[in-house]
Amino acid sequence: MYEGAVQELIDELGRLPGVGPKSAQRIAFHILEADPEDMKRLSDAIRAVKERVKFCSICFNVSEQETCAICRDPRRDETVLCVVEESKDVMAVERTRSFRGRYHVLGGSINPIAGIGPDQLHIRELLNRLSDDRIEEIIIATDPNLEGEATATYLARMLKTIGIKVTRLASGLPVGGDLEYADEVTLGRAFEGRRSLIG
Amino acid sequence: MYEGAVQELIDELGRLPGVGPKSAQRIAFHILEADPEDMKRLSDAIRAVKERVKFCSICFNVSEQETCAICRDPRRDETVLCVVEESKDVMAVERTRSFRGRYHVLGGSINPIAGIGPDQLHIRELLNRLSDDRIEEIIIATDPNLEGEATATYLARMLKTIGIKVTRLASGLPVGGDLEYADEVTLGRAFEGRRSLIG
Repeated sequence: MYEGAVQELIDELGRLPGVGPKSAQRIAFHILEADPEDMKRLSDAIRAVKERVKFCSICFNVSEQETCAICRDPRRDETVLCVVEESKDVMAVERTRSFRGRYHVLGGSINPIAGIGPDQLHIRELLNRLSDDRIEEIIIATDPNLEGEATATYLARMLKTIGIKVTRLASGLPVGGDLEYADEVTLGRAFEGRRSLIG
Repeated sequence: MYEGAVQELIDELGRLPGVGPKSAQRIAFHILEADPEDMKRLSDAIRAVKERVKFCSICFNVSEQETCAICRDPRRDETVLCVVEESKDVMAVERTRSFRGRYHVLGGSINPIAGIGPDQLHIRELLNRLSDDRIEEIIIATDPNLEGEATATYLARMLKTIGIKVTRLASGLPVGGDLEYADEVTLGRAFEGRRSLIG
């Protein structure tokens, strides 16, 4: 529709997740009118991420070095491992400041429809870490959805034979939420996982 | 939060219009995992737009040449000029395929709060075109909002002294819409602008 370069940019932007045709056009015109220095920084940032960012050879978190900042940090507890689906989940857990152990990023979840089985995830590498490291507990923090639960179940069964402590993040009512708006599965889980307040 | 390059990319993406922190993170991870060739194309497209795209010296539409494709097209009617706020609006009108005249892009609308007055818009250049060209009608197609209406009124008053035909796009019910959901201003305009069906 537009002449060459503008249309090419709209097309490329439209391929990004969550960017529809209208947003792509809006962003393209913003880029067109923005400060050239700012836009050079954006263009360079895309390039830099592709050139500099790799995955940690131990836990598969994103990293600009051979191993990530968390795996390199000697103050992190080596005995507890939190297993997550994506690097984004590492950040989400880090934001809570309530976990001082280490991570293992699976690179997704078991999803037969999308053709993702255990072999497509970093499960073999997780088993290798268990044989080398002094890990005492594995916290499975996959997403609380169908694929995440299936992955958690798969891992729990596999790890049972190794005789290691395996836990799963609690499901229940979101803090600050409203009981009457909770879906029945979440509310059911909240009942199952109820905790004693007195005695 | 993330290491260097990833966080830089999230920050740059977060400055784009309509991209919040969560979207910025999602897009950054998409870029991280996407095909390097695709992402080089995106990075190059941003650069190309800044380097190659200018504004038409006649109508201020986006163009990769001195004048835009519409101004260069001898088949377009020189006697009718459609005045719009942005290049995006040129495309919106073009998509209707119901206008075969030429355009004039103001580069925005009169907005005292944002400090945009008539001098910040390409109104002087519009007057210059009127003295040179064989223009018989000006269709004011600014947005049907407060700023667009103010701009239309300003232009109409200014052009009245020149003695040229000035029209404004009709306001009314959107086609395919539902009368009961129309706001009262739109519905009021639809009454004012009612057209005779018989006789």
